[in-house]
Amino acid sequence: KINGDRLWDSLMEMAKIGPGVAGGNNRQTLTDADGEGRALFQKWCENAGCEMGLDQIGNMFARREGTDPDALPVYVGSHLDTQPTGGKYDGVLGVLGGLEIIRSMNDLGIKTKHPIVVTNWTNEEGTRFAPAMLASGVFAGIHTQDWAEDRTDAEGKRFGDELDRIGWRGEEEVGARKMHAFFELHIEQGPILEAEDKEIGVVTHGQGLSWTQVTVTGKDAHTGSTPMPMRKNAGLGMARILDLVDEIAWSHKPHAVGAAGHIDVHPNSRNVIPGKVVFTVDFRSPELSVIEDMESRLRAGAKAICDEMGLEVEFEKVGGFDPVAFDEGCVGAVRAAAERLGYSHRDLISGAGHDACWINRVAPTAMVMCPCVDGLSHNEAEEISPEWAEKGANVLFHAVVETAEV
Amino acid sequence: KINGDRLWDSLMEMAKIGPGVAGGNNRQTLTDADGEGRALFQKWCENAGCEMGLDQIGNMFARREGTDPDALPVYVGSHLDTQPTGGKYDGVLGVLGGLEIIRSMNDLGIKTKHPIVVTNWTNEEGTRFAPAMLASGVFAGIHTQDWAEDRTDAEGKRFGDELDRIGWRGEEEVGARKMHAFFELHIEQGPILEAEDKEIGVVTHGQGLSWTQVTVTGKDAHTGSTPMPMRKNAGLGMARILDLVDEIAWSHKPHAVGAAGHIDVHPNSRNVIPGKVVFTVDFRSPELSVIEDMESRLRAGAKAICDEMGLEVEFEKVGGFDPVAFDEGCVGAVRAAAERLGYSHRDLISGAGHDACWINRVAPTAMVMCPCVDGLSHNEAEEISPEWAEKGANVLFHAVVETAEV
Ligand SMILES: NC(=O)NCCC(=O)O
Ligand SMILES: NC(=O)NCCC(=O)O
Repeated sequence: KINGDRLWDSLMEMAKIGPGVAGGNNRQTLTDADGEGRALFQKWCENAGCEMGLDQIGNMFARREGTDPDALPVYVGSHLDTQPTGGKYDGVLGVLGGLEIIRSMNDLGIKTKHPIVVTNWTNEEGTRFAPAMLASGVFAGIHTQDWAEDRTDAEGKRFGDELDRIGWRGEEEVGARKMHAFFELHIEQGPILEAEDKEIGVVTHGQGLSWTQVTVTGKDAHTGSTPMPMRKNAGLGMARILDLVDEIAWSHKPHAVGAAGHIDVHPNSRNVIPGKVVFTVDFRSPELSVIEDMESRLRAGAKAICDEMGLEVEFEKVGGFDPVAFDEGCVGAVRAAAERLGYSHRDLISGAGHDACWINRVAPTAMVMCPCVDGLSHNEAEEISPEWAEKGANVLFHAVVETAEV
Repeated sequence: KINGDRLWDSLMEMAKIGPGVAGGNNRQTLTDADGEGRALFQKWCENAGCEMGLDQIGNMFARREGTDPDALPVYVGSHLDTQPTGGKYDGVLGVLGGLEIIRSMNDLGIKTKHPIVVTNWTNEEGTRFAPAMLASGVFAGIHTQDWAEDRTDAEGKRFGDELDRIGWRGEEEVGARKMHAFFELHIEQGPILEAEDKEIGVVTHGQGLSWTQVTVTGKDAHTGSTPMPMRKNAGLGMARILDLVDEIAWSHKPHAVGAAGHIDVHPNSRNVIPGKVVFTVDFRSPELSVIEDMESRLRAGAKAICDEMGLEVEFEKVGGFDPVAFDEGCVGAVRAAAERLGYSHRDLISGAGHDACWINRVAPTAMVMCPCVDGLSHNEAEEISPEWAEKGANVLFHAVVETAEV
């Protein structure tokens, strides 16, 4: 078993970097705080005897050697970046859980045939630079490196420039590594495990995602002196589209969700009718056909709303991935580990996207989940118990050691 | 008559300061550009032989002496600050039109019994610091100076600190001046004069305004892994309230307007269900009872929407004024001037708020309006013709000279 206290201490230590305003974290990707978090992780990995690799897009790879020089490594990991008002565990548990299994293997003198590599993937959250899971997506060949580097944040700063600025660009070609398998430990970010009193989620599938950026254009005009019939209120158009998004998601209940988290209003002045609103609709479902249906109903419905209101509307797909079925062998290793440890468990479909969803395209992959309080995530109040973290890491430990062959 | 070319040249010269991105202006109050605009205005006034007064809240007063040392001055003016994506004429025409009548009186050797004072009121627009017409409101005793100085912008900067920073705080007590009368020339900002082919609007009334800041609080949560029934989506609550605002305004057609120009979504991340949205509802009507009805229906309706969705809602009145009836004598002087000059004219109710609305509380006041293209204002594309500007300034000239007694 791993050392639960040490894992928890490391989680609390990392959470000191990029503190939030309400007990959580704001350690967004490619900020100074991200750089600090990376440096701490690197120090810990080196103290655990690992050598750190760094690729051209900032993905970090801490390697513990195996006994067979020809064996491909077993990879574990997740991400250290957070939401602007994020929690202390989303992503971090998977990275530091990976480090903890290496520390525990050192303590217990366990040698594996396959090397073990702990990874920190750059920009998983996708808040500063859309889409989410950007760097694991480049690694898996979904996006080109150039395209990824050209992503810009709300202030127009380029991903590539910010990577250089914080000093975490490596030499290594992105995606050159081959993997024997990949395992990601993550908090559930949903309510099922806690509600059913299960200690472990064995993730068999991940639901798919579609991010559509919608731009509604009307006409800036005075809120006082412009008669109601002459208005082209892009804010009102946005409002009606948001109601449609909700209606579309509910129509596929319980197999879909939908909302808009990002909404920018221009010029955002109390006495100016909004001339332009840009917002991103997030639709998800485990079924590809449902995602496709939601996307097309959004486009047709928003167009109809805007036509009726004399507004223009444009759509751009800014992120997305199809539903994922994880590797049966790796999923089996996770389930067997939970069984062996005597932990209550159930199969799960991940509601969130994860780096594992992209890595599954290039390596046999699976995920371990632990519960989180009230299913709450992407919130500074995100919480888990030390026991949940420990049990999740123990399952990761057993699945990885089994796969890496003692 | 005034010199229309000189007036137009001055308008174009001022528009070079704080240029916008689409041909208009971004010269928001208490920015560096505001300071530059003030300096240019002061230079022009001094060249026209005026002495500049400056009060503790940055209101500027350029005085041309009268022949009777005991006579109270006739004031004219408006504001030089603009919206973030504002036009070249909103406010500016009233200030530079005032300067032009002084220049013309100099050219024509006209002496008046009452002094003439051209005013630039600080922060009319209210975008950076709510409410609008802030400094004329302090002058008229509506707000205290301390309260006004404590208003903060979106970055938390204080009005008082920004006034000091740009160096335009004077010594003079705010509101100490007594006025014989006040006249404000302004573009209509609405479509009526152009549609009816009238050259001059004789403003008899101003409609009232209510700004209610609404804060809807839900719970930040993951857009993917949070089941639909568990969501507390403050963005969706805002959307439904915006639809209600529109419905309420239409229900009083044609005696009311309503919209929200300012909307801030938190944390504004694509994969976080909005936990909080803050927005400002702008309701206006010439009838106080209609404004009161709209306000109370907004509060009750928004509460019902939020209760049903498990959201919290709070309301704060951040600005407002009652409908205004301007002084019959001053209105008569404007109408008589338009008649005398042979300009087509009609009586108007102002749809927008103006410094004149507050000054009307402490001095006999009236307004002159000229048409603007397509009724468009609070938009960089705001446009008027040089002839419209000239005719408006001629009416101002005649009404002022008449009131100031040759
Ligand atoms: N796990 C997680 O929160 N990932 C962010 C990408 C997503 O929105 O699902
Ligand atoms: N005239 C003008 O645009 N004033 C700004 C205050 C208002 O919103 O009416």
